[in-house]
This record gives sequence, C-alpha cells and structure tokens, in this order.
Amino acid sequence: MQTLKVDLGERSYPIHIGEGLLDQPELLAPHIAGRQVAIISNETVAPLYLERLSRSLAAYSVISVILPDGEAHKNWETLQLIFDGLLTARHDRRTTVIALGGGVIGDMAGFAAACYQRGVDFIQVPTTLLSQVDSSVGGKTGINHPLGKNMVGAFYQPQAVLIDTATLNTLPPRELSAGLAEVIKYGLICDEPFLTWLEEHVDALRVLDQVALTEAISRSCAAKALVVNADERESGVRATLNLGHTFGHAIETHMGYGVWLHGEAVAAGTVMALEMSQRLGWISAQERDRGIRLFQRAGLPVIPPEEMTEADFLEHMAIDKKVIDGRLRLVLLRHMGEAVVTDDYPKEILQATLGADYRALAQLKG
Amino acid sequence: MQTLKVDLGERSYPIHIGEGLLDQPELLAPHIAGRQVAIISNETVAPLYLERLSRSLAAYSVISVILPDGEAHKNWETLQLIFDGLLTARHDRRTTVIALGGGVIGDMAGFAAACYQRGVDFIQVPTTLLSQVDSSVGGKTGINHPLGKNMVGAFYQPQAVLIDTATLNTLPPRELSAGLAEVIKYGLICDEPFLTWLEEHVDALRVLDQVALTEAISRSCAAKALVVNADERESGVRATLNLGHTFGHAIETHMGYGVWLHGEAVAAGTVMALEMSQRLGWISAQERDRGIRLFQRAGLPVIPPEEMTEADFLEHMAIDKKVIDGRLRLVLLRHMGEAVVTDDYPKEILQATLGADYRALAQLKG
Repeated sequence: MQTLKVDLGERSYPIHIGEGLLDQPELLAPHIAGRQVAIISNETVAPLYLERLSRSLAAYSVISVILPDGEAHKNWETLQLIFDGLLTARHDRRTTVIALGGGVIGDMAGFAAACYQRGVDFIQVPTTLLSQVDSSVGGKTGINHPLGKNMVGAFYQPQAVLIDTATLNTLPPRELSAGLAEVIKYGLICDEPFLTWLEEHVDALRVLDQVALTEAISRSCAAKALVVNADERESGVRATLNLGHTFGHAIETHMGYGVWLHGEAVAAGTVMALEMSQRLGWISAQERDRGIRLFQRAGLPVIPPEEMTEADFLEHMAIDKKVIDGRLRLVLLRHMGEAVVTDDYPKEILQATLGADYRALAQLKG
Repeated sequence: MQTLKVDLGERSYPIHIGEGLLDQPELLAPHIAGRQVAIISNETVAPLYLERLSRSLAAYSVISVILPDGEAHKNWETLQLIFDGLLTARHDRRTTVIALGGGVIGDMAGFAAACYQRGVDFIQVPTTLLSQVDSSVGGKTGINHPLGKNMVGAFYQPQAVLIDTATLNTLPPRELSAGLAEVIKYGLICDEPFLTWLEEHVDALRVLDQVALTEAISRSCAAKALVVNADERESGVRATLNLGHTFGHAIETHMGYGVWLHGEAVAAGTVMALEMSQRLGWISAQERDRGIRLFQRAGLPVIPPEEMTEADFLEHMAIDKKVIDGRLRLVLLRHMGEAVVTDDYPKEILQATLGADYRALAQLKG
C-alpha cells in the first residue's frame, strides 16, 4: 500500500492506494468521528462491493443509499435521495458519508456531505480509474444543471481517500480507457518522463497489470495532489488540470450527458488543445502526433463529433466556468509536459482549431 | 451610519447600518469584483426596493431574479430559479449575488452563491428586522427539506452586509415583532444591560423610532458578531444563539413552515427555555416572568400551540441538528444574560417543561 498526503492545513487528508484495501477496516476507523455511516453507491457498484465495505464497517450504524448509475442522473432529483436517506435514518451532523463508486457517485456524495446540515464528514472510495486519478482528489463536488455541467457544487475536502486497485478488475474496458485519458493528461501538463513511461506501459495498463496500474494511479494522484496543494481554489496553476476539458465539456454538453464518457470527451478535447498548441507554434506536429498516438493506443477517440460545428463549440464554451468576463481562457501546451492557461492568442487560431480536419490527423496514426 | 466588522481572517466583512444606505452606491462598489450582478429578491420586496438598488448598481450588468415570498418556498424548486437566471444570463464565476429581502431570501441567495459554479461573491441587503439582526450575520445559508428545516445548506460568508433601517417602514407589524424576538434573545443570552434597555425602549421600537431601531440593530449585530467571531462553525459558544430554537423549530415543523413566523416560534420556544431554566433552579420565577412580559410587550406569542403534545415535541426535536449521538443538547439560561448549552439535566425536567401550563403563565402577565 502507498499513502500520499494532500497537504491543505487543517483540511489535509491521506490517499491510500493498494490491492484489497476495501477489506482493511483499520484504514477507515481513524476518519470516522461518530457512530453513524452512510454509504452512497449505485446500482452497478453496490452488488459488487457494498457488502464487503459494510463488513469493514461492522462497528458502526450503517445505512446505504443506492442511486441509479450514470452521468444522466447527476442531478438534484438524485441528490435528494441521499438527503431523504440521511433524514429518514435520522443521521445527525456527526455522520460520515462514504462514496463507493465512480466520479458521479463521488461528486454527488461529496456535495451531499458538503450540504447536509451545512457539512458532515466524507470519505471517498473510488472504484473507477477515472475517479481514482481525478475526481477523488481536489475537493470538487457537485451536480449538473440542464444548462451546464457541474454548475452547482462546492469545494469540499474528504477526510480520506481509499483506492482499492482490485476494483478495476470489474471495470468495463471502455471506462478503463476513459480513466487513462486523465492519466495521460498528467504526463502532458506537467510530467514528460511520465509520458514516456506511459508509452512503454499503456498496453500493460489495458490488460490490468496491477503493478503498472498502481504506479500509474500513484503518479497521477501525486501530480494532482501537487497541483492542488499549490492552488486549492483554482485561481491559477490548478486550471492546467483542465487541459482538454473546455473543448471536452462542449462535446459532452452538445451530445447530451452520458453519450460520450467524460474521459472520452477529454481525450478528443485534448487532441484539439494539442492541435491549437501546434498551430501557435508551441509544440511541433510530431509532438502533437505523439499525443494523438498515445490516446489511440489507450483506446480513446481523437476526433470530435462530426456533427459539431464551430458555432456549436463556441456556444457551449461561452458558459464554461473558465470564462472570465467574456474572454475565453484555454489550457494549452507550451511544451510537451508543460501546460499554460491563457487568453492571449489570435481568435483566428481558435477558429482554425475548431475547423481542423481531425479525421485526417487520426488516419495518419491509424 | 455605523459600521461593524465581522472578523474572520480572510473572510472578514463589514456590516453597514443606517438610514438610506440603499441609495449609496459607494458602499457596494468595493465589494463587487466583476461586471455582473444578480439581485435576488421576492414578489413583496422587489416592487418596493429593487429599482432603487438597481439605480445604485448602474455601473454593472444587472439581472434580477424574483422569487415567490415566504418560508414555504424555501426549497430546492425555488432555489433552482436562481441557477436558471444566472445560467440563462451567462453569469460567470466572477458574478456577485445580492440578496434583497428577508431571511428566506438571504438564506436562499447565500446558498445559491455558495453553490453556483462552486462559489461566487455574495452581498446581503436585509430588509426585515429579523434578517438584519440574525440571518444576515454568521454565514448560515440553506433551504428546507420536507423532513426538516435548514437541513441542506452551507456556511458561506458574504462580502458585505448593507442594512438600510428605512426599509423597516414598510415591514408588517407582525414581522417587526418577530424580529424583536431575536433582539430580545441577545439580551437574554449575553447582555443583561441590553435587556434593561429593551424594557425601556420596546414601545419606541414598535412604533419604528429610527434612533431606537438603529441602536437595537447595532447592539444585536455586535452581540452576534462577537459570538460568531469566537466560534465560526458552531462547535461551542455559537450554539447559545439557538436559545429557544430547538423548541421553536419543533413548533415550526409541526405547524408547517410559514404558519408561525420564525421569530414567533422562537419567542414561544424561548419561553419554554425560560420555564425549564426556572425548573432547574437556575433562574427565579420572577426572572422567567420578566422574559415572558418582554416578549408580550413586543407583540409575540408566549404559549406553544395548544395542539402540540409532549410526544410531538420529542419527535420533532429528535432530528434537530443539535442532537449529538442521540443526546438532546439544549440552550438554557444559567442566569439572565448568560446562556449555556447542555445535555446534563434530568429527563423529567424536560418532560415537565413540555407539559407545563403556559396559558396560566401568560395570563398572569396579561
């Protein structure tokens, strides 16, 4: 087992990573202050892991709230089921909410913990690669609104994060690939040597080599923890974590939540950021193609939806959270392994990027 | 104009109190970081003050969201109207949300500000006596749930609070009295000399003497700011602010939100706390009656609803936020002007308090 510490003063918390951690009650106990525990999971994950986690919590009064699965349910109506469960069971403000599932469960359970009686304790047990390397670290919680993704939420830190790498054995391959999109992102934005490591190990990761997975998760969490440490509320460097996300959110919003997986949209969105960085002369065509090739080997889409026009992208990006006073800030690559956040680029380059021939770029690598 | 400072480190903010402050744009400008402003108000207050406040904000891009009036609308469905308004107008994370109205508007606009894009700036412009002395100070925001009051919310501090005492000229007398319940509370819990001052000025307050109102609001805010300074997250001394609220919330929940005004329920609830303190031998019968008399002179109810049984109270109090691990903590008076939070009392005294003859106590003062 490896343990990282996210250092945020009095809100610091540990991330434990390793095989079989679900069966280790001693990792949870130090982070549960009261006698009540509420496990929030979904219809897919609960049958696989709820009983095991509950056994590790035999010392507590445990309830579970099982939500429908999927991004389409990341809304107020579903969140309300958590409050209903907590209030019906008369959980008080010393209860501990545990998220058992992927990013959607983590975001909703975390937001519910942030809001329930104005804030109760919260533990993350992420069971997808995406949530293990991304949404379980950094304190972002929330739900979607019909007019935009993650528009309602809170910054709220967990007491601890428990990552059992063995849970990836039941993850559908498409979701494993989606998680790899975020893993590759860390290499692109701040860790060029990790990018090289990934090129050597991407095949091993796709066949669930546990040693490779542990290393990839650990390096990803360490990279994110480092960035979050430096900038908890996303005023500066943290925004580089959104590489590919502005384009990606536009894809998700346009296609409808859940049609493309988040990681898939991030992969295609990052390819657009690579293309724009190349058009700005910051990276070479060969470097751009290196990124495209790695996403392809990870089983990810590198072409935005054919049906999306330049106007579609601009419309959806205009209400992105990264818009400050109407100027569109984008995360781009100054070099491979070094991202920057900037709104200082010719508008024509953005337009050319939105209109580029990604099908041709993808075929060159095919 | 008087200005108090609530000292919370980097989240400190000023409270400006005085006549005609709505027409002083220079008080708002230092607290608005972006170009977008969203005024949240309701159908009752907006016709009276929205245009004046908007004129003071002529330098900004201003939208308004007008909600239905009343505690019955303090729920998710109404909160959603704020998010709809912000997103439709494409307000970004540098927007400033301004609450123009009473406690319900402040709680909802504050919670919306806490959640919108995970937190945007917020200014309180309270227009009822209750919200001026209570809900605009202390950072509590939130909405009700069918199973409990204020069960979903956040601790979120405003950038500033602007109290225009002239807005009380349009406040219904019943709501003025409800606000006086909280004013009297400050005397009871921590300021015996203020209690004496109130006995001398309660008639002046009820006829809207501006000098007396300014003094009462200022002393109340100062008392609350002092308590909040000492204990931002309600772990200790802040809980004394809930004098009368545990009994009062039970009354509000049982009767249905909005049937009794919050201040009315607090008044009757505080009389119950006085009665229990007397039964514990902490205050005399004369001191209890002094409190009852003051509430009566302020035009407030001092008898809990006839229809509520002991069992009704216990049922509703069992999910109160002040319940820690199943033991019911209550705010009681050790002396007049000194409140304590305790769960160390004989259960029989609580039961006797719930069954006491408040009609007889009230008639003695009549």
